[in-house]
Amino acid sequence: MAVYTEVTDEACEAFLRLYDIGQLIAFRGIAEGVENSNYALKTTQGDFILTLYEQRVDPAELPWFLGLMEHLAAHGLTCPLPVRGRDGANLNPLAGRIAAITTFLPGVWPRRVVVAHCAPLGAALAKLHLAGAGFAPTRPNALGPAGWPPLLEKCLARADEIQPGLGAELSEALTTILAAWPANLPAGHIHADLFPDNVFFLNGKISGLIDFYFAATDLLAYDVAVCLNAWCFERDFSFNITKSQALLRAYENIRPLTPDEKAALPILAQGAAIRFLLTRLYDWLNTREGALVTPKNPVDYVRRLRFHRQAASESAYGI
Amino acid sequence: MAVYTEVTDEACEAFLRLYDIGQLIAFRGIAEGVENSNYALKTTQGDFILTLYEQRVDPAELPWFLGLMEHLAAHGLTCPLPVRGRDGANLNPLAGRIAAITTFLPGVWPRRVVVAHCAPLGAALAKLHLAGAGFAPTRPNALGPAGWPPLLEKCLARADEIQPGLGAELSEALTTILAAWPANLPAGHIHADLFPDNVFFLNGKISGLIDFYFAATDLLAYDVAVCLNAWCFERDFSFNITKSQALLRAYENIRPLTPDEKAALPILAQGAAIRFLLTRLYDWLNTREGALVTPKNPVDYVRRLRFHRQAASESAYGI
Repeated sequence: MAVYTEVTDEACEAFLRLYDIGQLIAFRGIAEGVENSNYALKTTQGDFILTLYEQRVDPAELPWFLGLMEHLAAHGLTCPLPVRGRDGANLNPLAGRIAAITTFLPGVWPRRVVVAHCAPLGAALAKLHLAGAGFAPTRPNALGPAGWPPLLEKCLARADEIQPGLGAELSEALTTILAAWPANLPAGHIHADLFPDNVFFLNGKISGLIDFYFAATDLLAYDVAVCLNAWCFERDFSFNITKSQALLRAYENIRPLTPDEKAALPILAQGAAIRFLLTRLYDWLNTREGALVTPKNPVDYVRRLRFHRQAASESAYGI
Repeated sequence: MAVYTEVTDEACEAFLRLYDIGQLIAFRGIAEGVENSNYALKTTQGDFILTLYEQRVDPAELPWFLGLMEHLAAHGLTCPLPVRGRDGANLNPLAGRIAAITTFLPGVWPRRVVVAHCAPLGAALAKLHLAGAGFAPTRPNALGPAGWPPLLEKCLARADEIQPGLGAELSEALTTILAAWPANLPAGHIHADLFPDNVFFLNGKISGLIDFYFAATDLLAYDVAVCLNAWCFERDFSFNITKSQALLRAYENIRPLTPDEKAALPILAQGAAIRFLLTRLYDWLNTREGALVTPKNPVDYVRRLRFHRQAASESAYGI
């Protein structure tokens, strides 16, 4: 949880004058999100979210992210809609950062995932993939397979600090994953980070998807594999096949997976596990004392990786 | 900024069923406040604040704080009004803590205090003092004069780590302050922590006072002295007499200070300075690495203390 950049009341009021969304009533820093600073903003016209983009986000990529969100919203997906200013711009400077105002989405993200969350999640993911189809600009996935070897390289010398033998295990796993990585599966725009804290529910239904700042153009089934990792493991790292089955069936009701996509699920899931394992490992080894955000333990993903490595086929996921 | 206690969506929904304020629409942790965990709560009936009381607050004292807030709100002060549950209780357990729901107040606290803030602040403080008059229960001020010697005792051995000679300077100052402390000034319920981040403004007017969890029964003019420390120094620690004059005149328009209160202002202001100096010093020396909240530098209050020690009379404050 973090607000990295403080916004003064005067700066917020001046910023708001660039937009036609009423007068400032309140703004409060939100203690969620680990990449950017977010404020809950209330004006005489309603609730909004004010986001200041911090160092991990390349300003040159912001128009792509916001363009994707506008496209998805225009095509029926409930996601934050960037608000355009009086001059048409949806990005403006604030407190030394680039900032955007987006619409407020109702709902609460599930702290404890149960089976009932997984079918709505699968359906929402498929809708996202279909809705993204008409958005022409592309963004290479910096945290896709090509990004994993250099990340591992940076962590290898100290990986065994986390767990003895971890360096060798990851090197071997990554070699296997990259050698088997599927080349010709359907591609499109993926969320790439659709964890429970990015999915709002209201009365048992999904009320919105948020945080598109890892979105990229990559294999659609890889996005499914990210969700299998993020939604289908229990706290003891056991895999809940009832959850994955619900997720995949609901996904396929809207966008059926091709036979090749299905066959690739174990390797895609290994890739997704190693992707989060590597960034968490890097953050774990490189977080300075006194940091605002507590890094997540990478070991959780070692357990996930091992599960996927022993998965013989897509049947391990209930389909 | 901090949310110390995580609340699950299920726990929040169950908690909300104890109240008659509609269905849950959203709740987000607020990255403000250093003592308790606060969530912005939105229901079908409006906006509220959900507070979970953390370790520094004694559960036995919560009914007094909430009772005072109810009393003040009933007597025309704009402060958070505790919402009572279906059974009449305004405190209920949540996530292993005691929690309360209060009304949401519009407004934004001033990040940079200007003279124009000081008259409304002075008037609001006087109104608070008058409105509190009819609330019979009392609460001794744990952080009043009797609490300062034990606090200094705990810090004395390491005070010079902050600044050479600080221990001796504080010992001498505290002896002087306690010897001169006025005994028979008008007493009542005081906020005791009315810093800018506890005062919301909207369109140049005060829209609410918050955070009554240091409130106590003590000298009313001591509360004024806290505000002189909190609102009238510039960032270079120079004292802005235009601000203090505006604050005091507006206060006196509503509740005139007695001659004894005026004469005591320098010593009360020294006391207020040493009170914040001591708690900041203690927190500075005792904050564990990895703490969620960055302690405030106590040196700011050494500078304030020195100013008040050279103040010959109330004229140093512009009256």
